[in-house]
Amino acid sequence: MTGISIHYCSVCGHETQKKVPEGDHRPRDVCDHCQTVHYQNPRVVTGCLPVYQNKILMCKRAIEPRKGYWTLPGGFMELGETMEEGAARETMEEACAHVTIESLYMLFNVVHVGHVSAFFLAKLENPDFAPGEESEEVALFAEDEIPWDQLAFSTIGRTLRHYFEDRQAGLFPMRLEYVTPPEHRD
Amino acid sequence: MTGISIHYCSVCGHETQKKVPEGDHRPRDVCDHCQTVHYQNPRVVTGCLPVYQNKILMCKRAIEPRKGYWTLPGGFMELGETMEEGAARETMEEACAHVTIESLYMLFNVVHVGHVSAFFLAKLENPDFAPGEESEEVALFAEDEIPWDQLAFSTIGRTLRHYFEDRQAGLFPMRLEYVTPPEHRD
Repeated sequence: MTGISIHYCSVCGHETQKKVPEGDHRPRDVCDHCQTVHYQNPRVVTGCLPVYQNKILMCKRAIEPRKGYWTLPGGFMELGETMEEGAARETMEEACAHVTIESLYMLFNVVHVGHVSAFFLAKLENPDFAPGEESEEVALFAEDEIPWDQLAFSTIGRTLRHYFEDRQAGLFPMRLEYVTPPEHRD
Repeated sequence: MTGISIHYCSVCGHETQKKVPEGDHRPRDVCDHCQTVHYQNPRVVTGCLPVYQNKILMCKRAIEPRKGYWTLPGGFMELGETMEEGAARETMEEACAHVTIESLYMLFNVVHVGHVSAFFLAKLENPDFAPGEESEEVALFAEDEIPWDQLAFSTIGRTLRHYFEDRQAGLFPMRLEYVTPPEHRD
């Protein structure tokens, strides 16, 4: 993951050059006209594991990547919000559901796509939900109903497996894990 | 924090328009020529608290913002690395010091500047360190030597205060906190 090429300067519209800026250590897209350095950095994905009476709220994706596969509600964190606010917003957008965000549960370095993915434990306040624009279907699943072979991303399976294991002990420690390319599909 | 304006499309160089893309909920800079939507998202700052024989390694900033003030080594996470790798890289760049990253310790939502800041507990392997290009000075501080009134950012003070308190109990739980604008200076 080295980022897309920024061919034109977003500030002045001139063509950029790939070079290592003074005092820097890696090539960036630099505008020789207005001197702007165009950095590219990882993005934060924020989502949650919404629990309602021992069941988990999941969304069947209506969009690519992984259209038709099941995921936990989540998406890119926006400017102007916290990770928790982003997770609740994404749940409202994708599942029309109101959640109370509890603790940070999983954090993943998804290096090959340039993401840091965060999942919070959350409480689904009531069983009111419906597919948002990016979902084909939204449903509550008990542990033995999870569509394990139809999960959208490996981060989803890992989060769910940890959750069901931790639930037996009643302890939900935050985990930071690394996702390797072959097993992750977005 | 609503992001800078992207006046020109980085893909094709044409002027962008501010509009809400179809299926989206907020205004973005959109290129009507090639249809690229230019998203802007929070960036991840990753750093560490390097410990050597009960002392903490800190850096006096040689660059703005907060030039001349003391900080823990850290900086923007890059594409192609994990948060832990980024924290170790920044420590090498700013303090010419080799650390072993241990556990994630502090995570801050710094909404007003669009950052998520992560600090890891780290072990400074040996007392070899020196100022990197972005530091005026690098030094080890015992608890009673910390320059509390010369800290660069509120995240640094919070991380250090939690650390010295947690050290008494010998337990270092991960904390997720929110930084409000008036007390944070970057």
